Amino acid sequence: MPVALLTDFGTADYFVGAMKGVILATAPDTRIIDITHQIPPQDIQAAAFTLLAAYPAFPPASVHVVVVDPGVGSERRPIVVEAGEQIFVGPDNGVFGYVLDREAEARAYRLDDSRFFRHPVSATFHGRDIFAPVAAALAAGAAPAEMGPPVAHPVRLPPLRPSRGADGTLQASIIHVDHFGNCITSITRDDWPAGEDSEMELRVGGSTIRSVRRFYAEAGAARDEVFAIWGSAGFLEISVDGGSAEERLGIRRGAAVRLRFGAAD
Amino acid sequence: MPVALLTDFGTADYFVGAMKGVILATAPDTRIIDITHQIPPQDIQAAAFTLLAAYPAFPPASVHVVVVDPGVGSERRPIVVEAGEQIFVGPDNGVFGYVLDREAEARAYRLDDSRFFRHPVSATFHGRDIFAPVAAALAAGAAPAEMGPPVAHPVRLPPLRPSRGADGTLQASIIHVDHFGNCITSITRDDWPAGEDSEMELRVGGSTIRSVRRFYAEAGAARDEVFAIWGSAGFLEISVDGGSAEERLGIRRGAAVRLRFGAAD
Amino acid sequence: MPVALLTDFGTADYFVGAMKGVILATAPDTRIIDITHQIPPQDIQAAAFTLLAAYPAFPPASVHVVVVDPGVGSERRPIVVEAGEQIFVGPDNGVFGYVLDREAEARAYRLDDSRFFRHPVSATFHGRDIFAPVAAALAAGAAPAEMGPPVAHPVRLPPLRPSRGADGTLQASIIHVDHFGNCITSITRDDWPAGEDSEMELRVGGSTIRSVRRFYAEAGAARDEVFAIWGSAGFLEISVDGGSAEERLGIRRGAAVRLRFGAAD
Repeated sequence: MPVALLTDFGTADYFVGAMKGVILATAPDTRIIDITHQIPPQDIQAAAFTLLAAYPAFPPASVHVVVVDPGVGSERRPIVVEAGEQIFVGPDNGVFGYVLDREAEARAYRLDDSRFFRHPVSATFHGRDIFAPVAAALAAGAAPAEMGPPVAHPVRLPPLRPSRGADGTLQASIIHVDHFGNCITSITRDDWPAGEDSEMELRVGGSTIRSVRRFYAEAGAARDEVFAIWGSAGFLEISVDGGSAEERLGIRRGAAVRLRFGAAD
Repeated sequence: MPVALLTDFGTADYFVGAMKGVILATAPDTRIIDITHQIPPQDIQAAAFTLLAAYPAFPPASVHVVVVDPGVGSERRPIVVEAGEQIFVGPDNGVFGYVLDREAEARAYRLDDSRFFRHPVSATFHGRDIFAPVAAALAAGAAPAEMGPPVAHPVRLPPLRPSRGADGTLQASIIHVDHFGNCITSITRDDWPAGEDSEMELRVGGSTIRSVRRFYAEAGAARDEVFAIWGSAGFLEISVDGGSAEERLGIRRGAAVRLRFGAAD
Repeated sequence: MPVALLTDFGTADYFVGAMKGVILATAPDTRIIDITHQIPPQDIQAAAFTLLAAYPAFPPASVHVVVVDPGVGSERRPIVVEAGEQIFVGPDNGVFGYVLDREAEARAYRLDDSRFFRHPVSATFHGRDIFAPVAAALAAGAAPAEMGPPVAHPVRLPPLRPSRGADGTLQASIIHVDHFGNCITSITRDDWPAGEDSEMELRVGGSTIRSVRRFYAEAGAARDEVFAIWGSAGFLEISVDGGSAEERLGIRRGAAVRLRFGAAD
């Protein structure tokens, strides 16, 4: 089965290539896919979001290796998680938090059996010496439960759920800004009342947005309008047709978003 | 057969990984190759040039997926093109224009049969939901004609051909600047008169170039000379040995190039 | 067997994709792995270091293609090297120098037999026209000795070995700075006296470092301390937990490093 890699290693060093060499040494027929290696260094939340957005596109039994690992070599546990018919390998530091929020059925195991590791295990590069060879063994058919004892409570992150203010306003945030400058909010369709598609008011960074489009390029729409749109990861996004919403609004990840429904007063 | 990907998605998001996951879900044995994901956002001409330069290196029946798609979700048609023994999948917005200029025999079909799509089809990410699964089906053996009705006239771009001025001067332009700063012109060997290899005068950005080299590093040549050379994509390029012609000449893509042959007056 | 690519081509052009297309045309079942394409343009030493750090992770009989080739088309020889149970293909300009320093048993051959090339061979892109098709042939089972006559003395680089000053001080240098800002020195465990783990003084860029950690994040250690650590490529590295040692010390590749052991006076 495929092995998908998600790291903060960048692509200028030997790190990613070395992980792939180790995977092919154990599982020569595996397809290795890069999700990205450009997670900002040690940004666990960014890795967790990107994994959440990517994994549903993969076939069952794919092995996702996530190495964003500020605590490499320290006390944090290396784990494998079975969830949503897929397998996830990496440090137990929250990178699997959003997947665990979504998948009710999940089992986790500590990577304890060093027969699956590459030796000698370095103190600084568990991606090459622990996570890659374990992923290769799993891709070649080993069971997650073979790797070590169960982990009852893998580390979670604060969930990506808006809260509701006293006045009924949804209080959300920008959880990701993509390559095109689209700003992804934490709002999902579950937060959206039935039958109120057209009447909403979204405030972010001093701007107010009232339009929800179906397509980026909508016939008759003003080209420089800032609008909301349901994005491909299932979240409401803020966009500009042919431009960067991030630049237009002057906002960044973490910016507060306020949303209310119904006609304005 | 291999599937080659060419997009403006960058490599920091989940977009490319999601497309690859979808391809492997349908065609688990396919080799997936990245041409590049760094086409400037929504730059159809740049995608068309890069595709033109890359596709001749691929084996017959390779499937090239091009997703540079400013009009995603709008009226533009998704198509598949058979040309030059290869298969091309993407939006009908001109990205296949230069391939169509070169390949006399080409057939195009609209991607109309949603059985080949990933469902639900999002409004914003046809790369994942239409182009990737269709490419996987084609790589797995489906025929382009199964995808939908013929498209008689796929969208073209202004062709990459110099024009000839009244005084016989070739009027060309810089169509690409590569990673090393080499400036690729629209001039091909078809534009070059037989037997006049040594006598030419090329003007671009205020500079005049009279030397056509065979190699970047030519014995006896001045290291900082700006020269012309036949590049690997079949076009005349402007280069500096060990440096960037783009920086030296202060030019950019689109700059006008004037070329005349014969001894200077 | 896998083919691993290491170039200075960047990833924005068609260069890498074209090489991969050529490889798959000859060896359709080969796994192609990118080490990196972000070697600084024409930086032979950087390519040689990255290759040295990456190749031990690969399975026997892997084919490593290195194209950092300032002299493409000129007199420099194209070669294949057998060393350390692996195969290396590229220009004979020093890119294999560090591998040759490490592997006692090595044989090199000139790429002379044009039956293995892609035709016509361009003057500017031997990556596509010579190195990729030769690598594919080797991956498909051809023997290095089939490629051409032996090369007795492939080009070497000044070796990565510290020298010892009159006062016993090791005189080394920074040979690489990685994505996280870790500064890799030329010091290996062979340079380290037995039993003197704790007492050392390392000077670089005006700073003095006395701590050698086992992990980046060590319990009880000051988070902003600059420390030394044995890195994953076998060299002593200079690091800051959660930050960039390069920025903290204001140093770059090539910076001098002085190391002495024993208690300070």
